[in-house]
Amino acid sequence: MTRLKDVGELGLIRRIRQTTAAASGPGVLTGIGDDTAVLALSPGAALLATTDLVIEDVHFRRATTSFLDLGWKALAVNLSDVASMGGVPRYALVALAVPASAEMEDVDALYAGMREAAAPHGVAIVGGDTAGSPHGWFVNVTVLGEHTGTPRLRSAAKPGDAVAVTGSLGRSAAGLALLERGLAHTRAAGVPEAAAEELAVAHRRPTPRVAEGRWLGQAPGVHAMMDLSDGLATDLGHICRESGVGARVMTDRLPTAESVRQAARALGRNPIEWAAAGGEDYELLVTCAPEAAAALARGLREATGTPLTVVGEIEGGKSGIHWIGADGEPLAVGSGFEHFRG
Amino acid sequence: MTRLKDVGELGLIRRIRQTTAAASGPGVLTGIGDDTAVLALSPGAALLATTDLVIEDVHFRRATTSFLDLGWKALAVNLSDVASMGGVPRYALVALAVPASAEMEDVDALYAGMREAAAPHGVAIVGGDTAGSPHGWFVNVTVLGEHTGTPRLRSAAKPGDAVAVTGSLGRSAAGLALLERGLAHTRAAGVPEAAAEELAVAHRRPTPRVAEGRWLGQAPGVHAMMDLSDGLATDLGHICRESGVGARVMTDRLPTAESVRQAARALGRNPIEWAAAGGEDYELLVTCAPEAAAALARGLREATGTPLTVVGEIEGGKSGIHWIGADGEPLAVGSGFEHFRG
Repeated sequence: MTRLKDVGELGLIRRIRQTTAAASGPGVLTGIGDDTAVLALSPGAALLATTDLVIEDVHFRRATTSFLDLGWKALAVNLSDVASMGGVPRYALVALAVPASAEMEDVDALYAGMREAAAPHGVAIVGGDTAGSPHGWFVNVTVLGEHTGTPRLRSAAKPGDAVAVTGSLGRSAAGLALLERGLAHTRAAGVPEAAAEELAVAHRRPTPRVAEGRWLGQAPGVHAMMDLSDGLATDLGHICRESGVGARVMTDRLPTAESVRQAARALGRNPIEWAAAGGEDYELLVTCAPEAAAALARGLREATGTPLTVVGEIEGGKSGIHWIGADGEPLAVGSGFEHFRG
Repeated sequence: MTRLKDVGELGLIRRIRQTTAAASGPGVLTGIGDDTAVLALSPGAALLATTDLVIEDVHFRRATTSFLDLGWKALAVNLSDVASMGGVPRYALVALAVPASAEMEDVDALYAGMREAAAPHGVAIVGGDTAGSPHGWFVNVTVLGEHTGTPRLRSAAKPGDAVAVTGSLGRSAAGLALLERGLAHTRAAGVPEAAAEELAVAHRRPTPRVAEGRWLGQAPGVHAMMDLSDGLATDLGHICRESGVGARVMTDRLPTAESVRQAARALGRNPIEWAAAGGEDYELLVTCAPEAAAALARGLREATGTPLTVVGEIEGGKSGIHWIGADGEPLAVGSGFEHFRG
């Protein structure tokens, strides 16, 4: 077992450089080892830039998260941000604060997880920073991407638009609920093993919808787009606020996986709550011209295999989200996650 | 007094967006408020990207650092990295983890400091992330820049090159030594008030050598270039290792300010130690063809007012740094700062 305090910062940087060399790619003119990375973008492309913090005991607990999964997730959530603009992710920088007592094997696992998430998209880890942390792990990934068309913004929703989501909702929140109880307990409570496993993976290793974002980002009729990181309640709220509109969501149309419904039944929870307010699904949320919705769903499924489901509509002259139950009556739904709030 | 837990994450982001709106600039197609920033680069330019962590009780102490200075420094050190490649800084992203008990006024001061450092260079704050921190403040700034020529790398030093530095060395280390003792104590010890003030400012508000980096980065005869963040001993060591060479430094040629020598005399310290091993001066370190050195020093002073001083030379067939005293004999010099080491 090698600890960081045994190899020092230079030893750590040397190791990171070795392990990320394989993840280099086209366009990296100068990677790790200089004061800045030097990178090429496609001619005429706009630069996309996004950054996300992942903090021990805030975003993850070591009891329920492996370093491999942590690395995957820290990188994947940034890829999801680029996807939500309809862009192409290219490069990543990683700033890492770690206690001196940390083991090198855990750092290796963290970078291995980042490489696993980055590789399918040809994203290279090109730089970063390292520091000792007085308390816990602290990972900040910045992803740089490019866009040669018109990025899809949160502010582009129009009254009358259909509101639609890719994939299904609530799997990550359900997975977190299972992991926090302990998978053994949830089996005893009657959650099928296959469902528990699927939900745990959904929480630990969310799939950034990069191909879906590129396809939707250039498809006619798509207006606003973003990714669902904090939950539909919070994120659709962002679109409403940025676009100056309201929204109506039919809760019985929210797509949920069978595994989510099984877990909800066994634990006595409401799957609609997980789907509406649970965060970290990293599905895409779009608004589109209502007459384009059917063709978009068909086209997206043909191009990527991923479903697109209309769950509501944008309303002019209103603000906030109005949740409608199966009986057509208004429904109260909890809000998504927000930092600093008790 | 407003605390973050009173306004929540959305209130914090709204405030940041308001305070940084004034710092927007040309090229910002989409700034704070979407999933990624959308940014323009100059046609044909390569993208430069760098990121730096600043952590409470690792990089700074609240007892000796105001939030205004913290913001300045967190941004300035990244500008310095872009400067050291000979590039032009354009955009910044700020990831911020803060305890929920933090005061909004401190966040405001942090961003004001960042804006003060960014504004002279036309750098816009275009995005970031915010999170609650379980322990202390954690600031991660990423700066994106561009370069239309050939960036100057650490690996380009050649045997026989002159080794030169901009400005003077050791002011930040001297300033830190004074601040840690307390400025009142250092006055009692005989450090002149003007010197103490100058050194404290040098430590708290280092000036990134952006104009100097651009000038040197395109000047004929300059080979390797980097900025002095961890001290000459550590940073020249990087150039040696990346270039596969050694270096000889004449310690009596290291440029030190009168204030550094006054503080060293009063505190019984050796100014050469501060100049050789003290970090955070953020001067530029270059190697150049020896016959070009005089013209470079003259040209840089004319263009920017900043001196360039030859302090040693690059040696082929050797490794590491050989420090030579005023008597021509080898001298032992401490090493610069490294994370994770005792």
